[in-house]
Amino acid sequence: QIDSARLWGSIHETAQFGGTAKGGVRRLTLSSEDKQVRDWFRKACEDAGLEVHVDALGSQFGLRKGRDMSKLPVGIGSHLDTQPTGGKYDGILGTLGALEVIRTLNDAGIETEAPICVVNWTNEEGSRFAPAMMASAAYVGDFTTNDILSRKDIEGTTVGQALDAIGYRGDKPVGFQKLGCFVELHIEQGPILEAEGKTIGVVDSGQGVLWYDGKISGFESHAGSTPMPLRRDALATLSEIVLAMEAIARKHGPNAVGTIGEAVIANPSRNVIPGEIAFTMDCRSADGAIMDALDRDLRAAIAEIAARRKVDVKIDLVWRKPPTHFDPKLIAAVENAAKTLGYSSRRITSGAGHDACNLNTVMPAAMVFVPCKDGISHNELEDATQGDCAAGTNVLMHTVLAIAGV
Amino acid sequence: QIDSARLWGSIHETAQFGGTAKGGVRRLTLSSEDKQVRDWFRKACEDAGLEVHVDALGSQFGLRKGRDMSKLPVGIGSHLDTQPTGGKYDGILGTLGALEVIRTLNDAGIETEAPICVVNWTNEEGSRFAPAMMASAAYVGDFTTNDILSRKDIEGTTVGQALDAIGYRGDKPVGFQKLGCFVELHIEQGPILEAEGKTIGVVDSGQGVLWYDGKISGFESHAGSTPMPLRRDALATLSEIVLAMEAIARKHGPNAVGTIGEAVIANPSRNVIPGEIAFTMDCRSADGAIMDALDRDLRAAIAEIAARRKVDVKIDLVWRKPPTHFDPKLIAAVENAAKTLGYSSRRITSGAGHDACNLNTVMPAAMVFVPCKDGISHNELEDATQGDCAAGTNVLMHTVLAIAGV
Ligand SMILES: NC(=O)NCCC(=O)O
Ligand SMILES: NC(=O)NCCC(=O)O
Repeated sequence: QIDSARLWGSIHETAQFGGTAKGGVRRLTLSSEDKQVRDWFRKACEDAGLEVHVDALGSQFGLRKGRDMSKLPVGIGSHLDTQPTGGKYDGILGTLGALEVIRTLNDAGIETEAPICVVNWTNEEGSRFAPAMMASAAYVGDFTTNDILSRKDIEGTTVGQALDAIGYRGDKPVGFQKLGCFVELHIEQGPILEAEGKTIGVVDSGQGVLWYDGKISGFESHAGSTPMPLRRDALATLSEIVLAMEAIARKHGPNAVGTIGEAVIANPSRNVIPGEIAFTMDCRSADGAIMDALDRDLRAAIAEIAARRKVDVKIDLVWRKPPTHFDPKLIAAVENAAKTLGYSSRRITSGAGHDACNLNTVMPAAMVFVPCKDGISHNELEDATQGDCAAGTNVLMHTVLAIAGV
Repeated sequence: QIDSARLWGSIHETAQFGGTAKGGVRRLTLSSEDKQVRDWFRKACEDAGLEVHVDALGSQFGLRKGRDMSKLPVGIGSHLDTQPTGGKYDGILGTLGALEVIRTLNDAGIETEAPICVVNWTNEEGSRFAPAMMASAAYVGDFTTNDILSRKDIEGTTVGQALDAIGYRGDKPVGFQKLGCFVELHIEQGPILEAEGKTIGVVDSGQGVLWYDGKISGFESHAGSTPMPLRRDALATLSEIVLAMEAIARKHGPNAVGTIGEAVIANPSRNVIPGEIAFTMDCRSADGAIMDALDRDLRAAIAEIAARRKVDVKIDLVWRKPPTHFDPKLIAAVENAAKTLGYSSRRITSGAGHDACNLNTVMPAAMVFVPCKDGISHNELEDATQGDCAAGTNVLMHTVLAIAGV
């Protein structure tokens, strides 16, 4: 059994780095707050006897030796970055839970057969730099390190510059730390476990993701003197796109969602019809065929709206992550750990993307979910109970012991 | 006849203050660019023999003596501030045209019976500070000087602070310069004169304006894991409001328009459903009853949308300017000047608001319009011909001579 109070203490101690007035966390990847939590995490890993290395994209790897060093380590962990108005648990539970597993094994004097590697992946959230889960995507070869290093945030700062600014461009090449498998603990970020009164979600799959960058070019003109029929209004165009996306996601539902999270009017003014808007789109489904249908329907709707309104709309697919099907043996290991420990559980699909989804493309991977209050995430009000966090960490530990061997 | 080349030269010389790459002007009120053009204008007025004073809201008044100083001056002028992506003519033609009238009278050695006062009104555009036509509104007593001084821009800078920053908080109280009447020359900012091949618009009326501040409070949550039916999406709500306003304006058309020019998502992120949006609305009609109907229909539509989407929408009417009916005698004077000079003309309603509309509530006022290319305004591509600008300035001069007496 892990030390529930120690885990809870770590979660609340680190929540001060970027802590907000509403009890959430604002810790964008590679920000100064992210540096603070990384420094804390490195020291905690070192204090737990781990050998810590940082790769060229800033991901932190803390290795605990095993009896058989010819075996590949069991990877555990998640991320410590957050959304602009994020919570205290998303990613953090999985990373500090992994640390808690190491501390517990140390206290109990348990040596494993295979080594264990605790990982804090850079930029899981994808809010400052696209795509999300950027470092694990480079780890599995979906992008080159140089490609990722050149990605820019909204201010034009590159990933490389941001890494240098906080001193986290590590000396190890991406992929230097081989892993045999990866298990990630996370809050569900959805309402199902809580609604059904289950403690553990045994994640068997994850939704695929489509990310687009969009730009609408209409025509700026005077709000008072431009007759309605002569307008080429970029905001009215965006409005139709937002509602079309909503309708398309509902049509393909319940296994589909679509969101426009960002939209910025260029040179906004009360009495000017918006002429230009940059926006992003996020569409998801656990079913590849539905993803294709979402893409097709969305493009058709946008083309029709743009033509009718005589505006130009460009959309650019900047990321396509296919649906994930986790490793059956690892899924069974998670399920078995939950059963052994006496926790109620159910199979579940992840609505969110996770680093484990990337790792699953090159090694066996699996995930453990715990409930979060009202399914709320990507919100400062995100909440989870100490008991559920401890339960998930116990399941993580027992899964690791089963895979690594004692 | 005014000096067309000199007028054209002044327009293009001052267009450098805030001039943009696309040939437009970005000269927000009380910005450093606005200071540059104000300094230029003061010197030009002084060089033309005018006595220049600045009032507590920064408006510049240049007085040319008349033979009978017991008579109230004839006010002419407009504004030198622009939209964020504005043109070279909106307001500028009317202000530099007024200066050109003075220069021409000087050259011809013409003394008028009544004095003439050239005015550059502060913040006509309303883009940095609300409402538009702020200084002339205070001049006619619609707002107190202190109220206006405390208005804030989006960065929280007050009008008072902005005036001090550029050294244009004048030592004269608002209203110190009494005027007997006011005549404003302006580009039409709409398509009618050009379409009908008329040189002069004799403005007999102006649309009323409703300005609102709005705020939508939905609920931030995860773009991937939040099912469509559970969302309280602030951007989807805004989208419905935008399209409802468009439909309402069309329903009450052609004599009605409605625009949402500003909308800012709080803490935007690609994979977060927008939780909070601040926006503004601008509705207009030349008919007071239609203005009331727009307000009523809009409030009803917003209430229905908010209730259905379970989000909170607050709207706040921050400005209501009733429709304007200009002074019949001055309208006739403008019409007569156009006829005498041999220019084609027609009566016209102003779609935009103007300082003359404010002044008209306490003194006789009128306006002279000239065509602008494709009716385009509040856009860097705003354009007008040298010949039309000169024609309008000639009409302004002959109207002034008729009113002031030679
Ligand atoms: N788990 C999580 O919130 N990941 C962020 C990436 C995404 O799914 O949008
Ligand atoms: N003339 C003009 O563009 N005025 C700005 C105020 C408004 O009508 O919106």
